[in-house]
Amino acid sequence: MAHTTSAHQIADLFAERAKNLAPPTYGTELTKIVSVSFTYGLADPTLFPHADLADASAAVLAQEAAIALNYGPPSAQLYEQIILRLQAQGIAADRDRVLLGYGSGQILGLLPDVFIEPGDVVIVEGPTFLGVVARFVHAGARLITIPVDELGMDVDALEETLSDLKKQGIRPRFIYTIPTFHNPTGTTMPLFRRQKLVALAAEYGVLVVEDDAYKDLRFQGEAVPSLASLDQEGWVFYVSTFSKIIAPGVRLGWACGDPAIIERLAMFKSEGPVGPFVSHVVGRYCATGKLDAHIQKLITCYQHKCNLLLEAIAAEFPSDIVALQPDGGFFVWCKLPQNISAKALLTACAEHGVSFLPGTRCYANGQGDDAMRLAFSFQPNDKIVEGIATLGRVLRQWQR
Amino acid sequence: MAHTTSAHQIADLFAERAKNLAPPTYGTELTKIVSVSFTYGLADPTLFPHADLADASAAVLAQEAAIALNYGPPSAQLYEQIILRLQAQGIAADRDRVLLGYGSGQILGLLPDVFIEPGDVVIVEGPTFLGVVARFVHAGARLITIPVDELGMDVDALEETLSDLKKQGIRPRFIYTIPTFHNPTGTTMPLFRRQKLVALAAEYGVLVVEDDAYKDLRFQGEAVPSLASLDQEGWVFYVSTFSKIIAPGVRLGWACGDPAIIERLAMFKSEGPVGPFVSHVVGRYCATGKLDAHIQKLITCYQHKCNLLLEAIAAEFPSDIVALQPDGGFFVWCKLPQNISAKALLTACAEHGVSFLPGTRCYANGQGDDAMRLAFSFQPNDKIVEGIATLGRVLRQWQR
Repeated sequence: MAHTTSAHQIADLFAERAKNLAPPTYGTELTKIVSVSFTYGLADPTLFPHADLADASAAVLAQEAAIALNYGPPSAQLYEQIILRLQAQGIAADRDRVLLGYGSGQILGLLPDVFIEPGDVVIVEGPTFLGVVARFVHAGARLITIPVDELGMDVDALEETLSDLKKQGIRPRFIYTIPTFHNPTGTTMPLFRRQKLVALAAEYGVLVVEDDAYKDLRFQGEAVPSLASLDQEGWVFYVSTFSKIIAPGVRLGWACGDPAIIERLAMFKSEGPVGPFVSHVVGRYCATGKLDAHIQKLITCYQHKCNLLLEAIAAEFPSDIVALQPDGGFFVWCKLPQNISAKALLTACAEHGVSFLPGTRCYANGQGDDAMRLAFSFQPNDKIVEGIATLGRVLRQWQR
Repeated sequence: MAHTTSAHQIADLFAERAKNLAPPTYGTELTKIVSVSFTYGLADPTLFPHADLADASAAVLAQEAAIALNYGPPSAQLYEQIILRLQAQGIAADRDRVLLGYGSGQILGLLPDVFIEPGDVVIVEGPTFLGVVARFVHAGARLITIPVDELGMDVDALEETLSDLKKQGIRPRFIYTIPTFHNPTGTTMPLFRRQKLVALAAEYGVLVVEDDAYKDLRFQGEAVPSLASLDQEGWVFYVSTFSKIIAPGVRLGWACGDPAIIERLAMFKSEGPVGPFVSHVVGRYCATGKLDAHIQKLITCYQHKCNLLLEAIAAEFPSDIVALQPDGGFFVWCKLPQNISAKALLTACAEHGVSFLPGTRCYANGQGDDAMRLAFSFQPNDKIVEGIATLGRVLRQWQR
């Protein structure tokens, strides 16, 4: 049926922006059969609180079906639970300052609608989470990359950049940062840098977008206050998610920030508020009070996996490969010696059934062939050990 | 916290498109306390298959949690069920031709991304479902309204318009139509008009967007083939939803059409595919085979409500008010005599606790103050009778 006898073609009707679209490359996997993938930060599927979510679903459908299954706003209980969690972190949160989305990625992806006109400057970290940054590029943002070191974003370099831009009359729209258990490096920005970052935001009038997806998964060390909790003047826009602490498949994230931003994002979220059913189920689960104990269980399991990965790396990798030890989160970042290309290494490893994310897929400026991200979250314990042993063999052969 | 001591304001950072946004007016309710609302096409909350959805949720969470709760595509079972339902209607459907969305509204709302550049012509019905049409306007479409009569869209008027536009060198992007149990008029386009509409689409190279949200809810008469099933050349893009036959709160709709359109819509659906959890639950429910029996139950109940409404109108309304009898769906459209303004009538009725949708909110061209839409779907039987009695009293007083 799809071939037409008409003189016209459907493709003639496409708007310019829709004519030549390349499929998104983020999320595609190698075509080789991979038996141990360290590529994606998928949650460990054995850790989902499925029985408690089943109880919550049953209760919602038995007692609240009339509201949870009709048109309407998301669950008020879910809003309340999220607001309580934000307030417990010292973040000023109320209903007007909170937006729910189908994952935090949806909300981050809507930021360009509110803030970016073609050519506007957006500041990102290098390396960073390109899945989100690609959306800023798509909207025409001109990216400036600030390096990340072992203490997160280099805020001195940021200050220099902001000052230079100001001299050119350029005011960036926002700074996108993942200060805690950074994706991909796993690093956490210490308090003094956070304070300086928040002060710079106010001084230069630039929004800071704080992506805090991993913060509950702290294995060791003291919690560091979020940027949003340090912000007294409303320049921090905070985003987080249930994907890492409940389940990605419920597709629920949230933002907290200036009501004028929240209101605008809600308008550009054109399909309307998140679904009543799923928000009622997750709201009900959170209200049981079981989430914090569940997070403790996750921490124990993910910490164990992280340690297994780091011990295997210490045993199997050549000593000139430097693995950064994270205090939490899903990722270990490895810096490769000069003679190893991450992209070439990935091709070689794929032949042996192991994959990782090459650093090139974490930089918006073309850097990164000297590093790789290993996600330890998804693989079972034995596969972590097996995968690193294989990777180690490939690396040792490589260097001969 | 929201007041800033900085010399800068967050509002300075907003893109032009986000600076002066009016909150959406569609969906706002009268501020008066309304005891009987005929305004919105909400589903009857007593008819949701909550027990079967609870069974499906329990089964998904017990047996498929690892997939349904992680990142990933929507349920393959749901795709399969939707494709089977489309094929049973005679529509060419396969995985490449189907897109799932958070309600059909999300998919319809994405059409402008693929098709509309400012000034492009889009053809809509008058009256129509403005909730969707507002999105076309927002994208800069120039709307042309084709009148709807008792047989749906006047396709002779459409032909004349297409011919006139062609003489001006203008090729409309698409024609948005609700041919079956039309919102708001309840009318159904007969086969001869459908055949002509599909032929015109191919002749003029214009896409037909067929919104088929209500088609399963037929009370009487023979089913008429969908436009998509008549289309041999790929000019019909079909959209439907589970909102009317399962529950709006699951937020699941679908589209079926040319793979080049599906592929592009998926790319502009920037938060990614619909959620694994909710799609698994609904897929599992559909696969039980219980949906068709459930739809029969819905038909019986909605038909009864429709009859109650029509009988009450016949008994209570002045005889110069003409109510169109629908063969299915959620709505009865009433044409008012010349001396009655729907907007003024709504104000008077609200004083007595009854509301409806004035025709002005169903036309993109300013018409409609001579009509009202009564949704019988949401109110319980006794409220329907009570509401129409009140409306009748107001109307009779008005005409004195």
